[in-house]
Amino acid sequence: MSEIRIAIAGAGGRMGRTLIQAVVETDGLRLGAATERAGSSLIGADAGEPAGVGRLDVAVVAELASVLDDFDVLIDFTSPAATMAHLALCRAAGKRMVIGTTGLDETQRAAIESAGESIGIVFAPNMSVGVNLCFKLLDIAARVLGDEVDIEIIEAHHRHKVDAPSGTALGMGEVIAGALGRDLKEVAVYGREGQTGARERRTIGFETIRAGDVVGEHTVWFAADGERVEIAHKASSRMTFARGAMRAARWIAERERGRFDMQDVLGLRAIG
Amino acid sequence: MSEIRIAIAGAGGRMGRTLIQAVVETDGLRLGAATERAGSSLIGADAGEPAGVGRLDVAVVAELASVLDDFDVLIDFTSPAATMAHLALCRAAGKRMVIGTTGLDETQRAAIESAGESIGIVFAPNMSVGVNLCFKLLDIAARVLGDEVDIEIIEAHHRHKVDAPSGTALGMGEVIAGALGRDLKEVAVYGREGQTGARERRTIGFETIRAGDVVGEHTVWFAADGERVEIAHKASSRMTFARGAMRAARWIAERERGRFDMQDVLGLRAIG
Amino acid sequence: MSEIRIAIAGAGGRMGRTLIQAVVETDGLRLGAATERAGSSLIGADAGEPAGVGRLDVAVVAELASVLDDFDVLIDFTSPAATMAHLALCRAAGKRMVIGTTGLDETQRAAIESAGESIGIVFAPNMSVGVNLCFKLLDIAARVLGDEVDIEIIEAHHRHKVDAPSGTALGMGEVIAGALGRDLKEVAVYGREGQTGARERRTIGFETIRAGDVVGEHTVWFAADGERVEIAHKASSRMTFARGAMRAARWIAERERGRFDMQDVLGLRAIG
Amino acid sequence: MSEIRIAIAGAGGRMGRTLIQAVVETDGLRLGAATERAGSSLIGADAGEPAGVGRLDVAVVAELASVLDDFDVLIDFTSPAATMAHLALCRAAGKRMVIGTTGLDETQRAAIESAGESIGIVFAPNMSVGVNLCFKLLDIAARVLGDEVDIEIIEAHHRHKVDAPSGTALGMGEVIAGALGRDLKEVAVYGREGQTGARERRTIGFETIRAGDVVGEHTVWFAADGERVEIAHKASSRMTFARGAMRAARWIAERERGRFDMQDVLGLRAIG
Repeated sequence: MSEIRIAIAGAGGRMGRTLIQAVVETDGLRLGAATERAGSSLIGADAGEPAGVGRLDVAVVAELASVLDDFDVLIDFTSPAATMAHLALCRAAGKRMVIGTTGLDETQRAAIESAGESIGIVFAPNMSVGVNLCFKLLDIAARVLGDEVDIEIIEAHHRHKVDAPSGTALGMGEVIAGALGRDLKEVAVYGREGQTGARERRTIGFETIRAGDVVGEHTVWFAADGERVEIAHKASSRMTFARGAMRAARWIAERERGRFDMQDVLGLRAIG
Repeated sequence: MSEIRIAIAGAGGRMGRTLIQAVVETDGLRLGAATERAGSSLIGADAGEPAGVGRLDVAVVAELASVLDDFDVLIDFTSPAATMAHLALCRAAGKRMVIGTTGLDETQRAAIESAGESIGIVFAPNMSVGVNLCFKLLDIAARVLGDEVDIEIIEAHHRHKVDAPSGTALGMGEVIAGALGRDLKEVAVYGREGQTGARERRTIGFETIRAGDVVGEHTVWFAADGERVEIAHKASSRMTFARGAMRAARWIAERERGRFDMQDVLGLRAIG
Repeated sequence: MSEIRIAIAGAGGRMGRTLIQAVVETDGLRLGAATERAGSSLIGADAGEPAGVGRLDVAVVAELASVLDDFDVLIDFTSPAATMAHLALCRAAGKRMVIGTTGLDETQRAAIESAGESIGIVFAPNMSVGVNLCFKLLDIAARVLGDEVDIEIIEAHHRHKVDAPSGTALGMGEVIAGALGRDLKEVAVYGREGQTGARERRTIGFETIRAGDVVGEHTVWFAADGERVEIAHKASSRMTFARGAMRAARWIAERERGRFDMQDVLGLRAIG
Repeated sequence: MSEIRIAIAGAGGRMGRTLIQAVVETDGLRLGAATERAGSSLIGADAGEPAGVGRLDVAVVAELASVLDDFDVLIDFTSPAATMAHLALCRAAGKRMVIGTTGLDETQRAAIESAGESIGIVFAPNMSVGVNLCFKLLDIAARVLGDEVDIEIIEAHHRHKVDAPSGTALGMGEVIAGALGRDLKEVAVYGREGQTGARERRTIGFETIRAGDVVGEHTVWFAADGERVEIAHKASSRMTFARGAMRAARWIAERERGRFDMQDVLGLRAIG
């Protein structure tokens, strides 16, 4: 099979440069096009240079419309407005998309859904293969261990993070609560101090560590008398998300149309 | 539903006492009978006393044949010879069994298989719910992450353990190698020293810690660039195995016949 | 040197039996006497039997006064009232003591202090060698790393524990706050939820896990940009405390008089 | 006190850029000069730009001799030859140095020693504050716990590392063996497989994990019956080493002369 040609939107940003690096490192993919917003000093430059991977002979352009013949799948981690513009172009041109943009509103999400009737789209707010795998492992563990274990979710992030617990930790809690027929709002415990009394089995504890420059660590305990199972995810760089996007791109290249997420890409929906 | 009546073979040994304790702590189960080898000083004593759970009004007897009317499921973690004698009695009397005895030879295993045509039997060398769950989680993780991660199995046991790695660690390696189409004998690495060169992707590393009184800890790393997933099991007492046996007893009580293992009991065979 | 003869008070209780087991396992020590409260069914029995270490040819007695010639050091983890009675007897007879009894009031503590003018006494509420070592390591780490790190204390205990954080975790916090000139009451954070804002450097976070049958785990993070140091203590049985008591007994056997604690026994007071 | 002016040698390399970033982030320090090898495309450029910290109004120069009036302390993580040239210049001009260069031979080390008679120098192959602190903590822990524990050193590094165990892990082993009067060559164990027999107390085990992109993790277990103490260091970026160099620079700025290492800078030599 010939190589899949990838376009990267926002090629000069931190995520864009990481995506280009990942394209270069992934068998079966090559960079076909790269865009940046009009007015960027990078327009016209070689897309490989800012990514630190050497020349790729792909010039950064301001208009996706001008390079529609040069790629098979667009990977887009930009802004809602830019993503909507790219969606219209890709739909018209029959190009597939991998969308990791966050902050989309209901209307924008509906537009992606609708475009999925014409083209193949993977859309996921967190493309980490590991995190998505963990969601499935947690679901299985919760269903098997059920009410015979105490469940605690410990997460750590860098000192600059302003909210707690992390969205991923809460997502893990939702998966577990769903598997056990519990309402996370009712059973979540976010701190313990003083005379707490003995633990109630159905609670789900969250322990939030904020320290140093930790990129993101999540550990879930399922603790019974005599044993415990731990499922942990530790992120060390945003390359995590880029690698997930590469996997999504290879997967969607073989689908004509449809709106998918990372559970589909990883073949996790059929498990369990 | 009325309570399930359990018989414990070898009621005076360390595992037997733990099993009796677990029966008392488990909803839906009660002790119906208890045996020890003829000549034990415990014959005639109350089975609850040596287990430290107070009087249960069940006398320890030397002959299982004399208490066949007093139980529904026999739990047997004794010796191969004793287990074979119990198997014959239970088959004739139509009593179910949960067998955790180790060291059985091929003929003895075949006898269990054959008895499964008449009565319900759960037979498993490791009845820990957590370990059996981890086998399934490792299988799924290996298939999803495949050749994009480095896999390492770290285990720790007490200073008295004489073999390395543990049988459970090797079992985990077999599950992973099987999922990835690798031959564990070819890819296992048991130590690293000196100029090793860069890691080869398809190897599976084992790191064996021997220290203190650690009951048993197993951690498997699936490490990619930018993230890693860890699946860990930590045992703190043999209550682990007793609790698995209780779960097996409740499950087999509802099956007429058949030879099952813990993957069946935990509903894991259908997953993945 | 001849063996040191140990007396164990409360020989039939859970801690007493563990202490007897530790005496048997420790070079240079042997059991010389064992007491239980009057009326116990163990009076007159061999002290080794309930401890599971076989016959030791030491009968359990109700009155310490009757065996004063049979030991060099009394180890006492009983109740305040019993300990006070033993203290008077040992002071009069010139016998050394290792006291791990908790819940003593000011008057009782003063009595110990006063007795230390005549006899050698080690008195400590937590005799774990590891915990006492960790207190010293935390003090050094805090002074070296100072305000350039974020400090978080994560602890886990079994589901039955009714207070949070543990006394040991709070003790660790006090040691760290003291080393850094902070007031723990002002800087302690016991949970994080919602829009917390970025972390303030001088805070000390406590994350309290309650799960399963965890005996006690404490981990302290010192996290800077680019690295973190972790100091952890993991208890797996009350043998921890018994072993510390043995070490204290051997140490006090060589001191004529004085009131000491585990920092003295471990030679930690001079460090740092 | 006025700010200390820092010169960075090798300002365009990966370590040099990290050092410049650390200077900017450290109170009391500012960049005074920056050098690169003659012929580099960075000569004449602003030193802040390649480091990603914006303009600092310090031009990169090829000759340290031309900027001797512009700094108080030179930080040098370059090559042995370049470091020797810088040493001669600094000695003549009475400028202090922080040297992190590796691979120096005996003669070169002697030259540093000799220069320490005239100027203040900190020389250390690993400037991580955390690693140096851990060396001290390990020394204390080993001396307190002695022969009553089993000691194991677990380390993890990325898949590209070609030697095992890491130099830091071996250094930790040396510190521990020295504290216990053991010869590391005799007691080190680098892997366990097959019928190993029970653990011998005096051995020190090394478990080497190679996986993913792990920057560097070292964990040392001291495991007794009933408890274990763990001391761990986890590096997440080379900023670790840069921060140690900043601390060394501030410390040496107050010393007239002498050859020091990180144990001096961190005040660890007096502890223990």
